[in-house]
Amino acid sequence: MEYQPGLKGIVAAESELSFIDGINGVLLYRGIPIERLVEKYSFEEIVYFLLYGEFANLAEIEKFKEKLIENRQIPIYVQHIIDELPPNVAMMDVLRTAISSLELSETNIYEDAIKLIAIFPTIIAYRYRNIMEKSIISPDVTHSHVENFLYMLTGEMDQTKAKILEAYLILTMEHGLNASTFSARVTISTESDLVAAVTSALGTMKGPLHGGAPTGVIDLLNEIRTFDRINEVIMEKLMNKERIMGFGHRVYKTIDPRAESLKKMIVTLENLPKWMELAVKTEQETLKILHDYKPNYKLYTNVEYYAAAILKTLDLDPNLFTAIFSSSRIVGWCAHAIEQRRNNSIFRPDVKYIGEMRY
Amino acid sequence: MEYQPGLKGIVAAESELSFIDGINGVLLYRGIPIERLVEKYSFEEIVYFLLYGEFANLAEIEKFKEKLIENRQIPIYVQHIIDELPPNVAMMDVLRTAISSLELSETNIYEDAIKLIAIFPTIIAYRYRNIMEKSIISPDVTHSHVENFLYMLTGEMDQTKAKILEAYLILTMEHGLNASTFSARVTISTESDLVAAVTSALGTMKGPLHGGAPTGVIDLLNEIRTFDRINEVIMEKLMNKERIMGFGHRVYKTIDPRAESLKKMIVTLENLPKWMELAVKTEQETLKILHDYKPNYKLYTNVEYYAAAILKTLDLDPNLFTAIFSSSRIVGWCAHAIEQRRNNSIFRPDVKYIGEMRY
Repeated sequence: MEYQPGLKGIVAAESELSFIDGINGVLLYRGIPIERLVEKYSFEEIVYFLLYGEFANLAEIEKFKEKLIENRQIPIYVQHIIDELPPNVAMMDVLRTAISSLELSETNIYEDAIKLIAIFPTIIAYRYRNIMEKSIISPDVTHSHVENFLYMLTGEMDQTKAKILEAYLILTMEHGLNASTFSARVTISTESDLVAAVTSALGTMKGPLHGGAPTGVIDLLNEIRTFDRINEVIMEKLMNKERIMGFGHRVYKTIDPRAESLKKMIVTLENLPKWMELAVKTEQETLKILHDYKPNYKLYTNVEYYAAAILKTLDLDPNLFTAIFSSSRIVGWCAHAIEQRRNNSIFRPDVKYIGEMRY
Repeated sequence: MEYQPGLKGIVAAESELSFIDGINGVLLYRGIPIERLVEKYSFEEIVYFLLYGEFANLAEIEKFKEKLIENRQIPIYVQHIIDELPPNVAMMDVLRTAISSLELSETNIYEDAIKLIAIFPTIIAYRYRNIMEKSIISPDVTHSHVENFLYMLTGEMDQTKAKILEAYLILTMEHGLNASTFSARVTISTESDLVAAVTSALGTMKGPLHGGAPTGVIDLLNEIRTFDRINEVIMEKLMNKERIMGFGHRVYKTIDPRAESLKKMIVTLENLPKWMELAVKTEQETLKILHDYKPNYKLYTNVEYYAAAILKTLDLDPNLFTAIFSSSRIVGWCAHAIEQRRNNSIFRPDVKYIGEMRY
């Protein structure tokens, strides 16, 4: 078979974790459409479902939530390591080094996954508030995983905001063999451990071709400012052949089901923030314009569009975007690492020699 | 095409870095047989050759050696991070966290590669001597890269020992798309940076299916002890269908050219240590026995056999084996990352969904 750069079109793993149909805009976690999952279940329930392959019963989920709560604290030596990193170090690099420094049991990969998922938001909030010279907020055991994340970041707990963030985090947990997930599987395939696999994934996620950046969408909405300027700004970009941020996806040739779910939840909110209203209206008009002027391009709203709108609504720092995304995708990384370990073959592909023979 | 677990037989990259012919026992770096390279060039010259694709002239190699020397020191904050890691943390985990914490320029990937290669032995020696409660030995600018490595580890500088270690490090720098090298390419393919790529590779290298362990060979030689026991011990293992450590390789169906080169250099040494003599004699007898009793298995001496013998001769702690191996393989990781970046396609393979549809 001919060499496919980036392994495009090559099956590199079998998985039960997600199914993607880009033509019809379908994303399933373990066989169930994400829009159904996000409506019905909490973050913790979906994490359990992705890791273990079935839904927890009441006793199981109580115990699971308890474990997540117990593992939120950052060990003192890891706090020191985070503190040693110079202030200019990017959040994704801080996360990679902090996660790499964790000592886990290695005897039970499920327990290790729970620990990594539990501690992740605490590392983000701890570093963020330190850098911003704000007082550190310790985890609160009365809050759920997502509530506590928002609380540790902002010092406030708003149920509606937590609900919105939870939906975003559930919808972005898992998405097949993207580069970061693939790197987690490659690392653990040598029988290395989960810390190493997640560390690799974090280093891979940080690349601009992967982790994405909401700033493009935020810049767009900032440029538009008011409803009456939507048409003008979008048309101008089309004429100048500029990319319209937040529209178009490599896989989805219709609306990204994650964007659709996020939007559906957002529009039911009472007192829709003005900013969010602008995002919804901009989407409508942009889709109409794209349909009229670029009918063959199949450009539809992607998940980043609503992710950016949500971040802005929650007043979260855009510099945290990739880190917050990672706090959900870490669930997919762990689930894939578990799956890889259960039926392992070390990744050792061939390489085509294209140099000269100099002897 | 059918799914190939571990991407076996699938070409995942084009490369000019090495060519392997396992049937004939050939390994070329950029088109030149390794046995020729190891006889003629220093560690620094081969690093330059692998990174830049051509041999340095005198001015270039002087400048290159200077840069390697300048970058040996560990920044203070990284020393503190290493010190914060609990004493029981394995050396490979220390290296992964320390490398992950480095802040490099990211403007020139070649400069970053030089910095990583230069600092790597210092991290190993710093941590090792700290854990062993020995005084830290600062890098010595009058020593070459390998001399200095041995000096920082042991406090001594023996030309013959440095020469042996240098040969081992040159011969193991690069070996195609093994799992760690592959993970470095996957990570950098998102346009992430070299620190992230090498961090991923370290996490992958640490897995027992990859990094290898010399303890098996050392245990074997310890069990044999004296020349007259070779036949007895090997035959007993054959009869019990035990694996004979240090023999057999996935790729090489004849003698591993790296093992051959190492042996050739070792046997010319004056005052061959008794231990090394045992290794050479054991190899001879074992190959004869394998030839007589397992002619179809094509089991020949692999590089780990002589690597273990060398480590023991240099009196280096077997716990450092994978770390020392990494101090050479980091050159291949960097060269592959540079190659990947020059002609990049993000790694995003397909995945085959094997779960149910539950809706």
